[in-house]
Amino acid sequence: MYSFTNDYSEGAHPRVLELLNKYNLEQNAGYGEDIHSENAKNHIKKLMNRKDVDIHFIPGGTQTNLIVISSFLRPHQAVISPETGHIHGHETGAIEATGHKIITVSGKDGKLTPEGIKKVVEFHKEEYTVKPKMVYISNSTELGTIYTKEELRAISKVCKEYELILFLDGARLASALTCSSNDISFKDLSELVDVFYIGGTKNGALLGEALVIVKEELKEDFRYFIKQRGAMLAKGFVMGIQFEALFQDDLYFELGKHANEMSNKIAGIIKSKGFAFQVEPCSNQLFPILPDSLLEELEKEFSFIRNEKIDDDHTAIRLVTSWATTNESVEALGKFFENVNNK
Amino acid sequence: MYSFTNDYSEGAHPRVLELLNKYNLEQNAGYGEDIHSENAKNHIKKLMNRKDVDIHFIPGGTQTNLIVISSFLRPHQAVISPETGHIHGHETGAIEATGHKIITVSGKDGKLTPEGIKKVVEFHKEEYTVKPKMVYISNSTELGTIYTKEELRAISKVCKEYELILFLDGARLASALTCSSNDISFKDLSELVDVFYIGGTKNGALLGEALVIVKEELKEDFRYFIKQRGAMLAKGFVMGIQFEALFQDDLYFELGKHANEMSNKIAGIIKSKGFAFQVEPCSNQLFPILPDSLLEELEKEFSFIRNEKIDDDHTAIRLVTSWATTNESVEALGKFFENVNNK
Amino acid sequence: MYSFTNDYSEGAHPRVLELLNKYNLEQNAGYGEDIHSENAKNHIKKLMNRKDVDIHFIPGGTQTNLIVISSFLRPHQAVISPETGHIHGHETGAIEATGHKIITVSGKDGKLTPEGIKKVVEFHKEEYTVKPKMVYISNSTELGTIYTKEELRAISKVCKEYELILFLDGARLASALTCSSNDISFKDLSELVDVFYIGGTKNGALLGEALVIVKEELKEDFRYFIKQRGAMLAKGFVMGIQFEALFQDDLYFELGKHANEMSNKIAGIIKSKGFAFQVEPCSNQLFPILPDSLLEELEKEFSFIRNEKIDDDHTAIRLVTSWATTNESVEALGKFFENVNNK
Amino acid sequence: MYSFTNDYSEGAHPRVLELLNKYNLEQNAGYGEDIHSENAKNHIKKLMNRKDVDIHFIPGGTQTNLIVISSFLRPHQAVISPETGHIHGHETGAIEATGHKIITVSGKDGKLTPEGIKKVVEFHKEEYTVKPKMVYISNSTELGTIYTKEELRAISKVCKEYELILFLDGARLASALTCSSNDISFKDLSELVDVFYIGGTKNGALLGEALVIVKEELKEDFRYFIKQRGAMLAKGFVMGIQFEALFQDDLYFELGKHANEMSNKIAGIIKSKGFAFQVEPCSNQLFPILPDSLLEELEKEFSFIRNEKIDDDHTAIRLVTSWATTNESVEALGKFFENVNNK
Repeated sequence: MYSFTNDYSEGAHPRVLELLNKYNLEQNAGYGEDIHSENAKNHIKKLMNRKDVDIHFIPGGTQTNLIVISSFLRPHQAVISPETGHIHGHETGAIEATGHKIITVSGKDGKLTPEGIKKVVEFHKEEYTVKPKMVYISNSTELGTIYTKEELRAISKVCKEYELILFLDGARLASALTCSSNDISFKDLSELVDVFYIGGTKNGALLGEALVIVKEELKEDFRYFIKQRGAMLAKGFVMGIQFEALFQDDLYFELGKHANEMSNKIAGIIKSKGFAFQVEPCSNQLFPILPDSLLEELEKEFSFIRNEKIDDDHTAIRLVTSWATTNESVEALGKFFENVNNK
Repeated sequence: MYSFTNDYSEGAHPRVLELLNKYNLEQNAGYGEDIHSENAKNHIKKLMNRKDVDIHFIPGGTQTNLIVISSFLRPHQAVISPETGHIHGHETGAIEATGHKIITVSGKDGKLTPEGIKKVVEFHKEEYTVKPKMVYISNSTELGTIYTKEELRAISKVCKEYELILFLDGARLASALTCSSNDISFKDLSELVDVFYIGGTKNGALLGEALVIVKEELKEDFRYFIKQRGAMLAKGFVMGIQFEALFQDDLYFELGKHANEMSNKIAGIIKSKGFAFQVEPCSNQLFPILPDSLLEELEKEFSFIRNEKIDDDHTAIRLVTSWATTNESVEALGKFFENVNNK
Repeated sequence: MYSFTNDYSEGAHPRVLELLNKYNLEQNAGYGEDIHSENAKNHIKKLMNRKDVDIHFIPGGTQTNLIVISSFLRPHQAVISPETGHIHGHETGAIEATGHKIITVSGKDGKLTPEGIKKVVEFHKEEYTVKPKMVYISNSTELGTIYTKEELRAISKVCKEYELILFLDGARLASALTCSSNDISFKDLSELVDVFYIGGTKNGALLGEALVIVKEELKEDFRYFIKQRGAMLAKGFVMGIQFEALFQDDLYFELGKHANEMSNKIAGIIKSKGFAFQVEPCSNQLFPILPDSLLEELEKEFSFIRNEKIDDDHTAIRLVTSWATTNESVEALGKFFENVNNK
Repeated sequence: MYSFTNDYSEGAHPRVLELLNKYNLEQNAGYGEDIHSENAKNHIKKLMNRKDVDIHFIPGGTQTNLIVISSFLRPHQAVISPETGHIHGHETGAIEATGHKIITVSGKDGKLTPEGIKKVVEFHKEEYTVKPKMVYISNSTELGTIYTKEELRAISKVCKEYELILFLDGARLASALTCSSNDISFKDLSELVDVFYIGGTKNGALLGEALVIVKEELKEDFRYFIKQRGAMLAKGFVMGIQFEALFQDDLYFELGKHANEMSNKIAGIIKSKGFAFQVEPCSNQLFPILPDSLLEELEKEFSFIRNEKIDDDHTAIRLVTSWATTNESVEALGKFFENVNNK
């Protein structure tokens, strides 16, 4: 049974693992103060062509989200998120557990709009409400969609206007930035966003997210917050080495591209059979709407998530590809669909 | 320069890394629900000869401490810790950040005593004080000392008497349980303690601690707490595989023994030269008191921590060994001390 | 200028103040352990015809809400609230500040329904979501509506079925229970609800809410939580004396009735002129929809809140009456409307 | 039985209650935005001869402490307190419940010293420890001692040097500032301290503390924090009117003086009989050391707290006077001691 359930079913990309093997018995400084972490940070900074950002490696995404949000907000301040945002429905209340309210905005395709943000800010003006102070978006979003540079610039502008910190969750940034329709670069990100992270877990690492703090005022004492939330690994170099592997050459982008190619092929197969999608396919997450009768067959060979019941006979499922998705598995899927036809 | 600074300077023990390599491209379920985690848990349960414990893998020690303490205590309840406890002085207020007070007891050699615990409970009887509800100890302690079975049994008894949850931090449990003077087994632990963890990070793993919940009432919903604090790794199998490697045979104990052997040798060298120790050497942490003039020389060849100034001319340093400590490095230390004499 | 802005514009009802004067120089035990608090609790218990409830006096409503919710929930548990719930939009994130998520349900007229609750529970079944464990309702609601006994019984049933704690915010309970359409008694409340409070601030006291804990498991150590959140007044007898005044005879009910009578009169005046209401008038809060041109005139003589813009020319305002609302003020309002006509 | 147990056994001073009666049926704005709060603030500002401070009325002391500390500190920052500090041992972990560690310093007579503060700061320099950012002192202290201007100036200086916020808990400030040995004025306070409060509860009010924020950077959004912690009374004018009564003339000082006079008389009586004191008497709290045999007799006529067992036969008790302490009660005490002699 092949799994399209998520993009974290396998270990590390072989070139990442190779470096872990290579440096395994080397003695390194603890808590991320080692040379590999340093190297990795420099590689990432080069991509943005700037040195004035702070970079920290944090084991997981939920952890990164909760540290960022709880560290930058004062007690009465809140974060604005799309209703589909990972922090709202998929983190067991991790943000609220640090004391902060999430203000959700229902939107299209998992994205926030400047208008949505404005409306929230205008509504929260009194001292009996929380004070919106941060905007949380993800790229790609939970629905696999991506922001255009123009969209991101517009959000960035409204954030500056209202003095909101703009935070971008990049757990799946590799897939977003290597999408055929993408026009955002790392440099753009560092200019439009105050703080963001580059997901390693979902793009070839065993674990680890690289948090990039751009805004000067947010940098102070950040290692204290990482430590306080239990996210400062003793062997921080385990993340440093992996990000060194991902960024010392183009590996990070290669892996994102591969995931997208696999995903495009699958989308093509399913579209050719006349099936619709819940959201127009783009990055490495696909949401085809399939007949329930077909799903039972499909589940015999492949595993995936049933995302949402669409009508009495149809369900939108989620298929996820990654750096590890094999051509064989996609071909097997192609073969499965060969004899299928939507009407 | 050889480092005796800590027991997390190297990556994973080769046999641990070997298994990570072996299973790297295998597809596994996410969030610790994979077969390797299952295997590892079964191996650990066998050591205790019981099946009725819950085991969870958590990336780091501070994280484990904060999750355990915040999940089991109600808002007005506090945890009792030795003044030297890791949670008190080395975790950036992680426990308080979850809302709970730590009540410290000054003690000898980093250990708590039943009397110390009793005194705290008797002192906290009014509703204007917090209510002690948990006892935190570590084995080995921050000073490298270990508990005897009799000591642990006495603490366990007083905890039962006062309805206190007994929590044992085993970040360095391997070294403690393989000490020549140790008389505690895993089975004993599971009978005397309500919840404890088996440190992987400091005994051969890249990361990971195995939390064992013995007390029935503490088991419910625990995965929610792990998730909420950001400690549920997407690739939980990365920890599962490593603990499988550590416990499928005796590797875990071998590594602890090796660390202790290296440490014993070093203790022998230093003692033979007439130097005293801050705490009588036992496990893999040594605290020799050396003349400051000697330290400057020593620091040219070895790195370590200066633990505490003892008098105008002497300082207690900390030397830590691990599974990775080489014979060569110990011999080099022996050579260094050859010509030294404490008159 | 007469204010219909809220029901806390004046001090205490004269009979309440009288008792405060009477006992002023009497020496009383601190922290609510005085005889007047005891008396007040006994009067309230008599109303329910039961002795097995715990009663605590807490200075304000937000404080009561946050203490109740944070004390009874474990870290991963959440509270379900109507979207219009006071805890969601009017308490500056007080609940989230204690670490808990509020799950909102949009509903009609500020009320929750069993179906709404069920849907939330069914949706939150996975460990990556919070776990609903409490239901928060208020009576009367933020929109001035009240629950019928049948509605409350249905909610109570679904809460028992799903093991949810049912918490009723009774900041305006006096007005609710003395409504002409009300069929709920204090006894009913104590049978259908696990914990609720009887608002003093909005019904004749200077400050104070009487929290009634019915469910046995919720009673333990509750004074610790009050103390920890800073809500245990040194002079707790100041609240005890006031609740003694409110409940030693029927004063509490008289005051609620008076507020409703005044409100009914006002509703009659406005209805007679052909104006609609946002919500059908019931208790001491009225939401008439008036032409904006008229509001400007009205604001010259009376103060009130503009609740919501209805269309380009109309706004729903909020008029609140209380025990202190004078006949003169209502007559003045009648006079104002005499010459008004909504076509 | 006359109670010397505390300074909050009676209601309000008659002149305070008189004003509450006078304005009882007046309609006032809610949430502290009324004219009486305004008046009271202006009276207090005049005492300091400055207008650039922000003043807020908060119901109780624990509440004020927790709001101040949690609002001004970032998550990794901690507050330094004397070991006897009210926040450490008498508030059920209220500060930790907001996420912050208290670093205690053992000191003499309940006071902090510049050296003690320096030592803490120097010890907390690493990111695995919390970062001291605030100093908490009280005047008078829990032991009834008071700071001299020189002592306060020295603490103020060290706080500025290390960028620590200096917070003074003035629950018993009236007694401190009217002590015969006091040389600190309100103006001094506003120059030496960043934030402090003027206790009403223990000096003639039913409830209420007046928080004075001097430091500019601490003023922003403070009402949000009051609201979030449930401390913004709907009828804020109840506190405003009381502080108006206390500060529109010299009542606040008169009451403090009276308490001290009563206390001085009692100290005289006990000293004349040859008994020692745990701490040299000064303000309205006395800690005489008396034979246990005598205490049993004393407890038949008077109530008080047994503070600490001194030896097998002696106990230090606490006697507290207040604005309400009667001459009769002091005379009764004198009579009791007439026939007593300490050998």
